[in-house]
Order: sequence, then structure tokens, then C-alpha cells
Amino acid sequence: MQKKISSTPVYEGTIFHMSRDEVEIKGKTYPRDVIHHDGGVGVLAIRDGKILLVKQYRYAIQKETLEIPAGKLEKGEDPYLCGLRELEEESGYTSERLETLCAMYSTPGFCSEKIYLYWTKKLIPVEHPRAMDEDEEIETLWVDIRKAAAMVNDGTIKDAKTIIAIQYANLYLV
Amino acid sequence: MQKKISSTPVYEGTIFHMSRDEVEIKGKTYPRDVIHHDGGVGVLAIRDGKILLVKQYRYAIQKETLEIPAGKLEKGEDPYLCGLRELEEESGYTSERLETLCAMYSTPGFCSEKIYLYWTKKLIPVEHPRAMDEDEEIETLWVDIRKAAAMVNDGTIKDAKTIIAIQYANLYLV
Repeated sequence: MQKKISSTPVYEGTIFHMSRDEVEIKGKTYPRDVIHHDGGVGVLAIRDGKILLVKQYRYAIQKETLEIPAGKLEKGEDPYLCGLRELEEESGYTSERLETLCAMYSTPGFCSEKIYLYWTKKLIPVEHPRAMDEDEEIETLWVDIRKAAAMVNDGTIKDAKTIIAIQYANLYLV
Repeated sequence: MQKKISSTPVYEGTIFHMSRDEVEIKGKTYPRDVIHHDGGVGVLAIRDGKILLVKQYRYAIQKETLEIPAGKLEKGEDPYLCGLRELEEESGYTSERLETLCAMYSTPGFCSEKIYLYWTKKLIPVEHPRAMDEDEEIETLWVDIRKAAAMVNDGTIKDAKTIIAIQYANLYLV
């Protein structure tokens, strides 16, 4: 059992906030720094045996990544609707129906972020798609499902939610 | 392109530190909160068609999780040796040889954490295994590779690195 003794807010950021807590474990008190995050959504979109990937620069790791379309949940927002919005903003497609892939905690040792993953093969182009946030610069590409798995194994694709989506596609959707 | 304008340390935690940066994107300046983390290691250990999982309480998500043996890298530590250490501490096994599974960024939108994943089928019991940290309380179990995949799909297993390891096992190691 782990019992919360105290929780002190230490930082209010733009996409998460942080607290320093004291927790009792086996009769002793330990510190725990916790990142509180409202969670996110990712969408595995497949057309003609190819997966939609987004190329973007990720400042936190100082690297370009290839990721499935994804975004942050607003507090209280429905993950399914968020998935449709992010898909449209980043790819110009919407979907008749998103299927549940799984939900995942990105790094539960210190962060509450939960990401809801969906998949769809039912894509519909949107004539005038919603615009992205103005601080996003992305490029989209379609990658063959099996090629994408090879790109995970050779280290080209390194984002956790994207690896999960690609492996899922190779296990269940080819 | 994203150009760093400034970086201000805002918090020094026990397992990460944080900065608030200003970044120039398309001629405008935006804030970026960054969690700086030294990274971690996870080990997919397989014996007789079963995967070793660790049950533990994760305070940050206020839930019990099932995860592969894993731990945090000390600054400059070799991931391979860290993998052997965490495997031994959490399971009482060591390995003749760990194979590279992949490396992943758990949540590259705001955190630098990179996790190195290994797999092994060559397990050797250790007579007097190294002890865990005293604030860890865990239980280990062996779960059939295919059953583990079902536990990802039904939401029982929700930790990102563990989902990646289980899907990998089902794709390549059965």
C-alpha cells in the first residue's frame, strides 16, 4: 500500500502541472514528483495497406519523429471526438468510424498521461479541413504496414504510441 | 525549424528535472515546458512460452500495473548492464545474453525519456539476487505470450513499454 501524506503543487505548465508529494510505503515516507497530464489520443489510419504517419520536430528530444496523428485531450474532452479532430487537422481526413485499439500509460512511473488509441480503415477526405495549431509544422506520409514494422525494428520509428499502433496493425490488420 | 531562444531551469526533482524554454517557430516565440529524464531500460524475459511480468503500484496513476522488469538509467550508465541489474533485482534471474528489441521515447511531446528494450530467452536463476530499492514492493508472475496479448487488448495491461514488448513477442518470438 502507498498512502499519500501530502501533495504540494510546484509548477503549472502549459500542457501539464507538477506536484511534489510525500508517500508512505511500509511505514516510511518517500518523496514522489508527479507530472499531472490530461491525456491524449492517437489514431492509426490505414488506406490501401499503408499507415498514415506525421513527420514533425519534437523539441523535447531535439529530433524529428514519425508518429501517428495524435493530440492532447482538453480537460473533460471525449477521446473519440478528439481523435477525429486530430486526424482531420493533421491529415485532412476524417473517418466514418474509429475502432478502439487500446489505452496506454506512456510512463506511469512519474506521469499520469493516458493515451487512447484508435484505428480506422474508413477514411474520408475533408474538403476544407480544420487548421492545425500555428506552432505545428508537419508533413504527412503513407508507409506500407510491413515496412513500418521494419522501421520500428531498425530504429527509424521511436515514438511509443506509434510503435504500439504499428505492431497492432502487423498483428491484427494485415 | 525550431530554435531555442532561452532555457530556464524551473524544478530539480528526484528522477527528472524540468526547464521552461522559449522556442522560435516560423518567426514567432512559443513556450515549451520540458521534462529532462536520463532514460530507462526494460527487459522482456521469456521462459517456456511465458513472459515475466511485475505487478506493482504506480503512485503517479494511482493504480496497480503489470509491467516488464524495468528501471531508470543512472546518468551515463550502460543500458545493457542496467537491464541485467533490473532483471536480477525484480525477478531473481540474470541472462547469458540480452538481445536488442528496440528503443522508444515514451512521450516525446514534452519529455526526453528514452527507454531501451531488450529481450531474452536465456534466463539463469541467481542464488542471492541483488536487493530492490527499499521503496519498491513488487510481485512477479509468468504469463503465456498469447494470453499477454489478450490482456493488452482487454485493457488489463496498459504500460506502454510493456505493450510494445508483448506485441513484439507475439510478432517475432512465438
